[in-house]
Parts: sequence; C-alpha cells; structure tokens
Amino acid sequence: MNSHSRFHSIAWPAGNPAETLPLWVDQNLEAFIEWALAESFAQNEALKCPPNLGESIRYSLLAPGKRIRPRLAIACGHLFQIAPHAALAAGAAIEMIHCFTLIHDDLPCMDNDDFRRGRPSNHKVYGEAMALLAGDALVACATDTLMIAEGAVPDSALLRAIRRLSWAAGPRGVIGGQAMEPLLSKTSTLSDLEKMFAGKTGALFAASLLLPLDLAGIDESTREGAVTARFARELGYAFQVADDLEDAEAPDSKEAEKPQSILYFLSSTEAATQTSARLSRSIDELRTLFGARASGLADIGGEVLKKLALRMKKTT
Amino acid sequence: MNSHSRFHSIAWPAGNPAETLPLWVDQNLEAFIEWALAESFAQNEALKCPPNLGESIRYSLLAPGKRIRPRLAIACGHLFQIAPHAALAAGAAIEMIHCFTLIHDDLPCMDNDDFRRGRPSNHKVYGEAMALLAGDALVACATDTLMIAEGAVPDSALLRAIRRLSWAAGPRGVIGGQAMEPLLSKTSTLSDLEKMFAGKTGALFAASLLLPLDLAGIDESTREGAVTARFARELGYAFQVADDLEDAEAPDSKEAEKPQSILYFLSSTEAATQTSARLSRSIDELRTLFGARASGLADIGGEVLKKLALRMKKTT
Repeated sequence: MNSHSRFHSIAWPAGNPAETLPLWVDQNLEAFIEWALAESFAQNEALKCPPNLGESIRYSLLAPGKRIRPRLAIACGHLFQIAPHAALAAGAAIEMIHCFTLIHDDLPCMDNDDFRRGRPSNHKVYGEAMALLAGDALVACATDTLMIAEGAVPDSALLRAIRRLSWAAGPRGVIGGQAMEPLLSKTSTLSDLEKMFAGKTGALFAASLLLPLDLAGIDESTREGAVTARFARELGYAFQVADDLEDAEAPDSKEAEKPQSILYFLSSTEAATQTSARLSRSIDELRTLFGARASGLADIGGEVLKKLALRMKKTT
Repeated sequence: MNSHSRFHSIAWPAGNPAETLPLWVDQNLEAFIEWALAESFAQNEALKCPPNLGESIRYSLLAPGKRIRPRLAIACGHLFQIAPHAALAAGAAIEMIHCFTLIHDDLPCMDNDDFRRGRPSNHKVYGEAMALLAGDALVACATDTLMIAEGAVPDSALLRAIRRLSWAAGPRGVIGGQAMEPLLSKTSTLSDLEKMFAGKTGALFAASLLLPLDLAGIDESTREGAVTARFARELGYAFQVADDLEDAEAPDSKEAEKPQSILYFLSSTEAATQTSARLSRSIDELRTLFGARASGLADIGGEVLKKLALRMKKTT
C-alpha cells in the first residue's frame, strides 16, 4: 500500500469547518474508499482479488449510506490537524468494519434481512458464501486501509490506532456486542443494555473519534483527549437509541418484540431524555474547548440530537 | 495488551534446534494462545467478551490440531533469533486466522461440514450465528495477538508484519483463494489452480515464515530473506497438494468430485513429483545457507515431504 495517489498531497479545506468540511468529505471520501479498495485488491505475487469477491465487496461498501462514522473520523482528524489522507484512511477503515458487520448481520443465520439500504442485501445478490467471504475480507481491508496513514504519523501512533481498530472490531467491540444481544432478556438490567450498546454501536462510534486522536498522538488522559472521548461515547450511545427507536417505528418492525427492544428500555427509564441531555452537554464542552474548529464534529452531534428528538416525540 | 506475563522473559531453548525446539513449542504454545486470548477478551471500558462468544472461540482454537503454522513461525523466529514471545505472537496470530477460516469454512453456506478434527464443528455446538461471530472475532484477536511483539522489535518491523498478516487474511490471501474456488472448472488451467492454492493455503503458510522475517527486520530481497521466502512458497504448495490427496482418499470424500480436485490436476500433469522435488531443493538450500540452525524448519519441511510421498504412493 505504498503507491502514491492524489490523496497523499491533498489539503484540508480553508474556511469555517462547518461549511467547508462536509463538501470536502463528499468530494473525497467515496473516491478514497474506491482507491483504498483497489490497493487492497492489487496483484500480490500469484493472487489478485477474484472478481466475484471484489464485486460483492464493492456492492455493499459503495452502496449509498450516511457515512456518519467516516464523517466523524474526518471531522476529528481535521480538528487535530492530522494529514488529510490519514484522516480519510481512518474513516474508510471504520466504514469497512461497519460494512462487514452489516453484511454478516443480514445473513440468514443472523437477522435474515433481505434488504439493506433499500437494495437487496449482499447474500440475496451474491449468495451466502460470497457474502460471508466479502465480510471476512473487509476486516483485512480495513487494517490495510488504515495503514495508508503510514509515514504521515509516527509509527507508534499508527500502532496505537491499529490496536484500537482491532479492539473495536473484535470480541470487546462490535462482535462482542452482537454476541451479547441474544443473552439479553426481559430481566436484563439497564447496565446490561448499556454494555450491549457499548459494543454493538458504541465501539465503532468511539473508534471513529479515537483513531484520529491516536494518529494525532493525543492521549485520552489529556483534557483535549478526554473531552473528545466523552463526546465519542455520548454520541455513540445517543445514535444507538435514536436508531433503535426508528427501527421500532417501521411498519414491519421486529424490533418491538425483542426483549432488548429500546421501547421496553424506554418504558422503564427516562434514559432517552437523559441521553439527549448528556450529548448536549458534551457538544457544549467541545465548543467551549475548541471553539469554531469543533463545528465539524458539533454539527454531526447536532444531527443525532435532532434525530433523537424527532423519535422521542413520535414514540411518546 | 501491555500486561506482562511469563512469556515476556522466556528464553529460547539451548542445544540442537531439531531436538529442543519441538519440546519448547509444545510446552509454550498452548499456554501462550490461552494467555493471548484472555488478553484479547479482557475488560475494556464497558465491554468484556461475552462468555458464550469466548467459549465458542476457545472450543475451536484450543481443539487438538497439528499447529503446523505456528510451529513454522516459531522455528523461523528461532532461526532469526527474534524475541521468543514475538515468535509466539506471530505463530498464535496465524493460528487464529487459520482457525477463523476453518470455522467459517464449515458453515452450511460453505462446505457444510458437521465435523472438524474429529469433533462436532463449531456451529453444530454453538449454532451458526455464534460460529459466524467466533470466526469474525478471531480476525481481530489475531492482530491484537501479533501486537504482543510490540517493544520487542522496532515499530516499523511490527507494522510490516501487521500488513503481511492482513494481506494473508484478506482478499489477496486466504479469503481470495476461497472465493476463487467456485470459479474453477474442468477447463481451468494449472496456473488457475496454482493461484487458488497460493491464496487458500499458500498465503498463510508463507505468512508463517515471512512474519518472523518481517519482525527480524530482514528484507525478502536479501539472500537470507529470499531463501526463506522460497521455502515458504514451496512448503505451502506441497502441503496443499498432500492435504488434497489425503482428502480425496477419505471414504466419504466429496473432494474427488470437485472440478478443482487435485486428482484431476494430477492426472494431467506430473505436478506432485515436481512439487516434491522443488520442496527438497528448497530444504537443501536452507540447510546450506543456515546449517544446523535451520533444522527446526527443515524438519517440518521433511514431514511435508514424507506426507506427500505417502499420498503419491497410495494414489498412483
């Protein structure tokens, strides 16, 4: 992954990050992901990525999506002024892990979903075996992609980010959260639910902000690091709550019947209101510490707040 | 993964590596894998690896196996005198990737095998969803485990090894080889088969030797690196040929019916004889260059030669 591309000399946009950054992300992220994939697929000794596998991976990874995780990573990388291509690498790597979990989640042995983002899910198009392999391959592609940051940051910072990514993708992160889901029941406590959320959604959301922090060489024990890490956690939690409320509203929802349903959770606590208040505080804290530089991140926080407010209104 | 253990101060065995190394591996490898897993599962913020997931991973990873890949990694690490715990880390990481591919391979949507190593396969015990997640989790555990070498080798060497591991586990490696398998047909050429083998088995075999080489900071372009890399390729190829011949002999074998069957391949070429000759030459080359120090590796090469000879006799 040493070939140079236009991304190695790309510059951050000038001007107010709230206005200029979203456009910059739109213009670069998809192209960067395409290029990173191509690099991951490139010929190496005898083997090139077989075309059927590449097509299956591209189908899911390049499907229209909100890209909230890479947007977060890039906004955070911008805040700490790491090299733009390193921020893109962190964002793309996380999106690959997210995409891998979606492909595997949709498989018949998991949630058995025939549709994803309005299109047939991966296994409905390429078959279960190829969907399984596409997900598997994306885990390796993610590490490969994060390593595009090599040279732009100290090796020790990159190693820390790789460790963080493997934590987020593994048994203590998103896979752990998924494994925990079937263990929950009507008698589960709020703390059990929070643990499941922390893995299932929280780990990748947190990683979206903490990877760029790692790449910038900023420790979580510093004030800047702690405020960013707290925002990461609050945002991930709020996003999961909003997302589950949205799922529960869908006409053919299976969510409301699950014991770990957010509706059950809301009926017993005021957690959604608290979640919203905590995220608001965390956004304020960001703005106070970083000023206008934080507006890229704060705006994404605002979107999640809005989504949460809308859902709470509809549900209550 | 910074906690110290007895492995951080472990020493290589003294004496003739052909005699002392196998015993040293037996005594340390399983315990190291257990410890590395525990580290990968350890509490991190809210989430600990859920017990059902941990049990499913342990069931497959600690099942009795030949451990040929970690044995190779450790023998190679010994040859180049990297820190013993770094060699164990490389070996355990590769075994985790190997184990992940076995769990996923056995799933109904892939080979649909109910047994593995004489025991019910993972999904027969834990269900398909948990088997899927156990495999997924092992990819992340592998990177985590390789990073146990941090501090014992330069950061740049560790980064190179991580890149190699992600290559071997990804679309250009074992996953690419698996995706290629269904594309083969009766009209496939020898070169197509070799490409499939290079990914499916070759990538992890090569990584078993090249990861320790990376950790030792030795480039493939040097004489030492080139001889080791050639041995890695020949060994991986020979192992796959021997393994497929063995599968084809099994009374209930489905192998012989596959278009990519090694039997079909052997009927049209003298490839098995050539494979054997090439591996022999490569072992000689190792011995000439490294002398007695190479006997750990050469002995494993000898085992594969013997297995190949036995199978060729039975088949012809």
